[in-house]
Amino acid sequence: MLHQQEPIIALATPTGKSAIAVIRLSGQDVINIVNQVFKGKDLSQQPSHTIHFGTIHHEGQIIDEVLVALFKAPHSFTQEDSVEISCHGSTYIIQKIIQLFMKLGVRLAKPGEFTQRAFLNGRFDLVQAEAVADLIAADTAIAHKTALQQMRGGFSTQLQALRKKLIHVGALLELELDFAEEDVAFADRALLENLIQELLAIIGNLIQSFSLGNVIKNGLPITIVGKPNAGKSTLLNALLQEERAIVSPIPGTTRDFIEAEINIGGIHCRFIDTAGLREHTTDTIESIGIARTKERMQQAGLIIYVFDLSDESLATIQNTIEEVSASGIPYIKVGNKLDAAQPDLLKALSQEDFVFISAAKKQHLDQLEARILQLFQLDQLSTSDTIVVNTRHYESLVKSQNALLAVVEGITNDLSNELLMIDLKQALYHLGEITGEITTEDLLDDLFSKFCIGK
Amino acid sequence: MLHQQEPIIALATPTGKSAIAVIRLSGQDVINIVNQVFKGKDLSQQPSHTIHFGTIHHEGQIIDEVLVALFKAPHSFTQEDSVEISCHGSTYIIQKIIQLFMKLGVRLAKPGEFTQRAFLNGRFDLVQAEAVADLIAADTAIAHKTALQQMRGGFSTQLQALRKKLIHVGALLELELDFAEEDVAFADRALLENLIQELLAIIGNLIQSFSLGNVIKNGLPITIVGKPNAGKSTLLNALLQEERAIVSPIPGTTRDFIEAEINIGGIHCRFIDTAGLREHTTDTIESIGIARTKERMQQAGLIIYVFDLSDESLATIQNTIEEVSASGIPYIKVGNKLDAAQPDLLKALSQEDFVFISAAKKQHLDQLEARILQLFQLDQLSTSDTIVVNTRHYESLVKSQNALLAVVEGITNDLSNELLMIDLKQALYHLGEITGEITTEDLLDDLFSKFCIGK
Repeated sequence: MLHQQEPIIALATPTGKSAIAVIRLSGQDVINIVNQVFKGKDLSQQPSHTIHFGTIHHEGQIIDEVLVALFKAPHSFTQEDSVEISCHGSTYIIQKIIQLFMKLGVRLAKPGEFTQRAFLNGRFDLVQAEAVADLIAADTAIAHKTALQQMRGGFSTQLQALRKKLIHVGALLELELDFAEEDVAFADRALLENLIQELLAIIGNLIQSFSLGNVIKNGLPITIVGKPNAGKSTLLNALLQEERAIVSPIPGTTRDFIEAEINIGGIHCRFIDTAGLREHTTDTIESIGIARTKERMQQAGLIIYVFDLSDESLATIQNTIEEVSASGIPYIKVGNKLDAAQPDLLKALSQEDFVFISAAKKQHLDQLEARILQLFQLDQLSTSDTIVVNTRHYESLVKSQNALLAVVEGITNDLSNELLMIDLKQALYHLGEITGEITTEDLLDDLFSKFCIGK
Repeated sequence: MLHQQEPIIALATPTGKSAIAVIRLSGQDVINIVNQVFKGKDLSQQPSHTIHFGTIHHEGQIIDEVLVALFKAPHSFTQEDSVEISCHGSTYIIQKIIQLFMKLGVRLAKPGEFTQRAFLNGRFDLVQAEAVADLIAADTAIAHKTALQQMRGGFSTQLQALRKKLIHVGALLELELDFAEEDVAFADRALLENLIQELLAIIGNLIQSFSLGNVIKNGLPITIVGKPNAGKSTLLNALLQEERAIVSPIPGTTRDFIEAEINIGGIHCRFIDTAGLREHTTDTIESIGIARTKERMQQAGLIIYVFDLSDESLATIQNTIEEVSASGIPYIKVGNKLDAAQPDLLKALSQEDFVFISAAKKQHLDQLEARILQLFQLDQLSTSDTIVVNTRHYESLVKSQNALLAVVEGITNDLSNELLMIDLKQALYHLGEITGEITTEDLLDDLFSKFCIGK
């Protein structure tokens, strides 16, 4: 028997005037409740997955002509009895219908409550539930693919396999404990360590994928920096294919930072064009701009450093690169004004990892875009790869990793099985948190409250 | 056999992120077309009015997990084969699914095209089709009720009865024509005239109902006018129950006109507070305000004239009333500052049709609201009354009325049956235009283009 909770109701489609609006009900007795106000057919006698035309009545008045779709437990999204009412997309009608059912004892659903019930009834795990919200929010091909893969259980399968292996390790340790007085070492500790190292490698890969996953989900902030007049605004305009930033040959033209979003290979790249980094300026507004540029650099997910090939010297370029790389933020070195480059400089830099472009002539911009994707391994992304996109998952993976590292350290220090088990259980616990095998009410409430109403 | 037209597709729910979005397809072969990209079940083998869970595929990739609802001709809204796809409410997914079907030869539906097909297939007449759009737009109880009544055929039945009677009259006249040489008068002309007068009375009532119907559909612009400091802004604030307009004891406080909407008895009343009508002012901005007040008065559906009972004289009040009534616009006379009224003035005015209030003390505002509803006969509105809300219907009724009046005139002038028939046919023609029995392609295109996409 599945658990059927109190009946809930919510509009499942966006608000606004439209041809159709869908109102969703789920929970104990909802088919009979709808039947009370529906005229057309006796809904209680109809099979699951059927649609019925009729009218919704209240106090002798028709509220609307509707189509009612029936889903009987457990064959519904929530695995409870569910009804979907398609009415005319009028705010007035939607309100009247929802109010009518509230009078009949149906409660307004909390955000994500339908999905929460589906989770609680075991339709899917937490990773899959969260992927439903990600799927709705997805607005690029890659975000859509990642969310769909997770909703369909790709990541969950991998996590299950991981947990299973860990439980196996734990069982070996427990077994040894039982026979402790006989001093029998069932678990070969070297073998044990190998197994854990193997798990650590998998978890490590997943953790690493989050830098990409985060970019897929939240976009990539890219700061364009460089000396004044290096052509930063020209580059931004060229990438955007429009005149977004004011460009002029006068150094210091850009003072405010300018933001613009470009979709490169399915990634929302938020480019930030900044004031040029001049050592000495007498212009106060420009000084403030430069200070802000330095701030922006700290927040960037990627820095594009633009050098002026026609003007800068090898020494200053090398100095600057040292400075930039010290920040620890991924960066791409771009040599601009390729058409007017100093031949010696170009030759010297050709050994280095530079992208040479002419922003003004829109040359080699494709190489720059390819380099961005390459840096985040987006170019090698295969459909079967699991990418961690969720901060919650990432954090649990890191905790699990730390616990496993503690186990490895414990083995090295020849700790007792009892002590090893404590860390091993921690690792298991954190993996279980991800899929929701281990969960708390607070976590669930917090997680589902981020969903939209009616989902 | 019903006419199944080329397949069309449209999003039927509003755009935006949501739990569910519904994409609607209708036309020849749509079930087989959806079946080509649907995995889960063979849709071509399923009965009408059933729902099926599965996935939509394109080039080996899943676009989304969906529910597909099947409606087989003639048991669908359009009376053609139809499919409704419930997918996740993501703009990306919606776009991908619609694009996929466009590749498969399905055309994007024009606004109102589904309803237009339903009309063309005889599911309902034009009045009912237009009521669908009105129903979606309805945002008050009364607008909702009127639209629903018309959608369910209330008005159409009445029009059918009218046409039938007119055709009967025409048949009598035609019969007489056939026997013209025998000089037999089958149709008693007095009887004929009575019948037409009866029809004119019904049409007259319908035409009259449009002043109410128009108010129901488009709201009622009410201009509040009166001498400076009569308490117009205080009245507006009291009706709104908020401090919308700045009030002060200084005459001429309001210069710009202030608009605010209040729902009174289901009618959207758009109150316009105006600058006080002072004969002589030295303030230029105030003068402009007064000129605008006079303009506004011309556009009002109702004028509320506020008199200051504590200050004005009977003579000026009577003068003003004469002026206001000359405008021909419906008006309500309001005596404000009841608590400080001059006893003699109050006594003199008590015989007249005044509403006495105190705006500052919020006294008797309910009486003012009741008077507004009374003036438009909203207080006596019964559920069975047909109210003409559509300008197109109104215009056709007026044309039909004029043609019938010409028939009456023809009878008086003893015109021949042939000539009477011309006008009678005109009257029939214009009645037929309303329900769509007589129609042109241009009219249909124009009419349905005002619908929302997906309806």
